[in-house]
Amino acid sequence: MQKHAVKLSVFCGVSVDGFLARPDHALDFLHTGEQVPHGFEEFYGSVDVVVIGRKTFEVVLTFEKWFYGKKPVVVLSSRALDFSSVKGGVVEQMSGAPAEIVGLLKARGFKHAYIDGGVTIQRFLAAGLIDRLVITRVPVLIGEGIPLFGAVPRDIRLRHVATRAYEGGLVQSEYEVGATLPMSGSPIPDAE
Amino acid sequence: MQKHAVKLSVFCGVSVDGFLARPDHALDFLHTGEQVPHGFEEFYGSVDVVVIGRKTFEVVLTFEKWFYGKKPVVVLSSRALDFSSVKGGVVEQMSGAPAEIVGLLKARGFKHAYIDGGVTIQRFLAAGLIDRLVITRVPVLIGEGIPLFGAVPRDIRLRHVATRAYEGGLVQSEYEVGATLPMSGSPIPDAE
Repeated sequence: MQKHAVKLSVFCGVSVDGFLARPDHALDFLHTGEQVPHGFEEFYGSVDVVVIGRKTFEVVLTFEKWFYGKKPVVVLSSRALDFSSVKGGVVEQMSGAPAEIVGLLKARGFKHAYIDGGVTIQRFLAAGLIDRLVITRVPVLIGEGIPLFGAVPRDIRLRHVATRAYEGGLVQSEYEVGATLPMSGSPIPDAE
Repeated sequence: MQKHAVKLSVFCGVSVDGFLARPDHALDFLHTGEQVPHGFEEFYGSVDVVVIGRKTFEVVLTFEKWFYGKKPVVVLSSRALDFSSVKGGVVEQMSGAPAEIVGLLKARGFKHAYIDGGVTIQRFLAAGLIDRLVITRVPVLIGEGIPLFGAVPRDIRLRHVATRAYEGGLVQSEYEVGATLPMSGSPIPDAE
């Protein structure tokens, strides 16, 4: 049973010490070791919308080519954004709390959203709205940067689905996330 | 080729978001999910000395029983420690920079040290003195606590040795650490 009709997934690469990017947003360290296909294309083919924050949007704009192709991209921001430099992409803006965003995505008929970017992932995780987490760990410690994880209002139990190790040292773990997952050892609390 | 005659290993459990313990040092979350043997006994049997910091020592003192059995334990601290409450254990104190500690361990004839505790692990990693890192990730996010990793003076390249997934959701990755490992894509710098 899903909590909502839109599935929300995270698929990201991090250093072994948990960083999505360096402090200046550089991603060079993700190429540590041999690069091998590790399922991103398949994952990307399965989503019908990408949800990112303003910061990720600004970083992506610095890339040579629009990263997301023709896939609809939602940029979360409460302030006005300039989409004029997005060449060939399909971009729109939304704002609101994660639950509101999920409602908007659902109303638009989206079925599977790719949630990306540090702040955005953290907000949706903290709100208990992420369904699936696929973390690919790159064999390097970088010491500082933009962390994948942040504060959570309470423990979030994960269910391990699968882990795959690749030539070159990438290790990818897939988890289901959900407040409804049983906490081992925790009795079901009485209604208060 | 080893950098030194004493091998230094880390073998630890962390939440998926990278914490060794909660802010109050509680370890309850490590028991999330089913508990299955994941190699600690075998690892512990292979070390001939345990090296911990003062904080870990103080936490271990609160345990019902001396955790380290008859294994020699070195507690790192520059201030006087009271070992009177250690019942049945073999404890001594050392102080100094990680490289000095390695020299002392080597002089004592130790061959394989188990480096434990957040600050201590971070200091030895930053000094480039850890040989092997075995991280067992417990399927839960706790959001805050004592992190396994900290600042490093430069990127530390890891070599993935093996990853094992266990019933109940534990995922254990083993890495070799070493400044001498080749950095893919980084040419060997000229002498300055």
